[in-house]
Amino acid sequence: MDFSSKLLENAVNEMSQFPGIGKRTALRLVLHLLKQPEDHTQSLSNSLVNLRNKINFCQNCHNISDTTLCEICANPNRDRQVICVVEDIRDVMAIEGTGQYRGQYHVLGGKISPMEGVGPSELTIKPLIEKVRSGNVKELIFALSSTLEGDTTNFYIFKQLDGIQIITSTIARGISVGDELEYADEVTLGRSILNRIPFESSLKSS
Amino acid sequence: MDFSSKLLENAVNEMSQFPGIGKRTALRLVLHLLKQPEDHTQSLSNSLVNLRNKINFCQNCHNISDTTLCEICANPNRDRQVICVVEDIRDVMAIEGTGQYRGQYHVLGGKISPMEGVGPSELTIKPLIEKVRSGNVKELIFALSSTLEGDTTNFYIFKQLDGIQIITSTIARGISVGDELEYADEVTLGRSILNRIPFESSLKSS
Repeated sequence: MDFSSKLLENAVNEMSQFPGIGKRTALRLVLHLLKQPEDHTQSLSNSLVNLRNKINFCQNCHNISDTTLCEICANPNRDRQVICVVEDIRDVMAIEGTGQYRGQYHVLGGKISPMEGVGPSELTIKPLIEKVRSGNVKELIFALSSTLEGDTTNFYIFKQLDGIQIITSTIARGISVGDELEYADEVTLGRSILNRIPFESSLKSS
Repeated sequence: MDFSSKLLENAVNEMSQFPGIGKRTALRLVLHLLKQPEDHTQSLSNSLVNLRNKINFCQNCHNISDTTLCEICANPNRDRQVICVVEDIRDVMAIEGTGQYRGQYHVLGGKISPMEGVGPSELTIKPLIEKVRSGNVKELIFALSSTLEGDTTNFYIFKQLDGIQIITSTIARGISVGDELEYADEVTLGRSILNRIPFESSLKSS
């Protein structure tokens, strides 16, 4: 792309560093800013820099939080003996959105991925094991996405728990509620048959 | 969406004001920034604010330019008697990319759109008419998109030229080079038959 302005080129280059945003989209976004008042760009810029510089993570679950303990960890009504292990804040938001979970979370901050240079030490696995070792945790629920990286991470944590008395579980994989069987992929359908549950339980949860 | 952090919420809200970026995408982009070093966010922010505050437009064609006259207008080899009327810088870049045009441009900065509150006075139509009235322009090429707004804008400018001796033309609409006829839409195919050109000309341009 051949820009008539260095300022424009810089802005487009910076914007196109976001994942999934190419040069064309970046140009469209930047031109949108130019049609808005100047203070619009200023406030966008301030909010991003503010977030980046003042970002804070909950001491207990490592989720993004403005306070030392996040709302969920500080809530006395949440079950501290059950911990759901997730990748990032989006998973916490998704599970909270269901209203079905009353335990706490542990945010890993990613998945083990040698391809992307993410090893166990980049994630918050150590504090998780320490939390479990302290003896107050009864159950660990793995809720990572079922990819190679997700499975590797699950297994790595599982191995670290060797010798510790704790229940580990993983969220159920199966056909989405409301989905037609004929359109489901074979792996998911296969798992949902292998891991079938008593009919009575399905009545309870619906 | 229920965020655990006000800082994060602000950043996501600001990012989701871009056209085509919803809350989920905004969250994904913002979380990406958090995984990058702090100076990455700082330089993104600087480049956007810099562009917005220091933005300059070419005195002659109103394209975005860091100098008083843009490169194209300052180039003595470009034909000043032919002016291509376009909506914004993206169209200039697209036409320049073809390498087929040696005239100058006039960037309107948008199209007349009562729905979006854009009237003729918001665009650079007045300086265009003045430029034409000065007598040094031989041909005006309309290259706006062929939408209701584009056609309205073309027609408005055409009306303003009343009584001025000038050739006006519009870029050819037709089947894309390499396209199969059977997949072309009816309006385009119809126009390409009505506006057919001598076979000899098609040999020259390929």
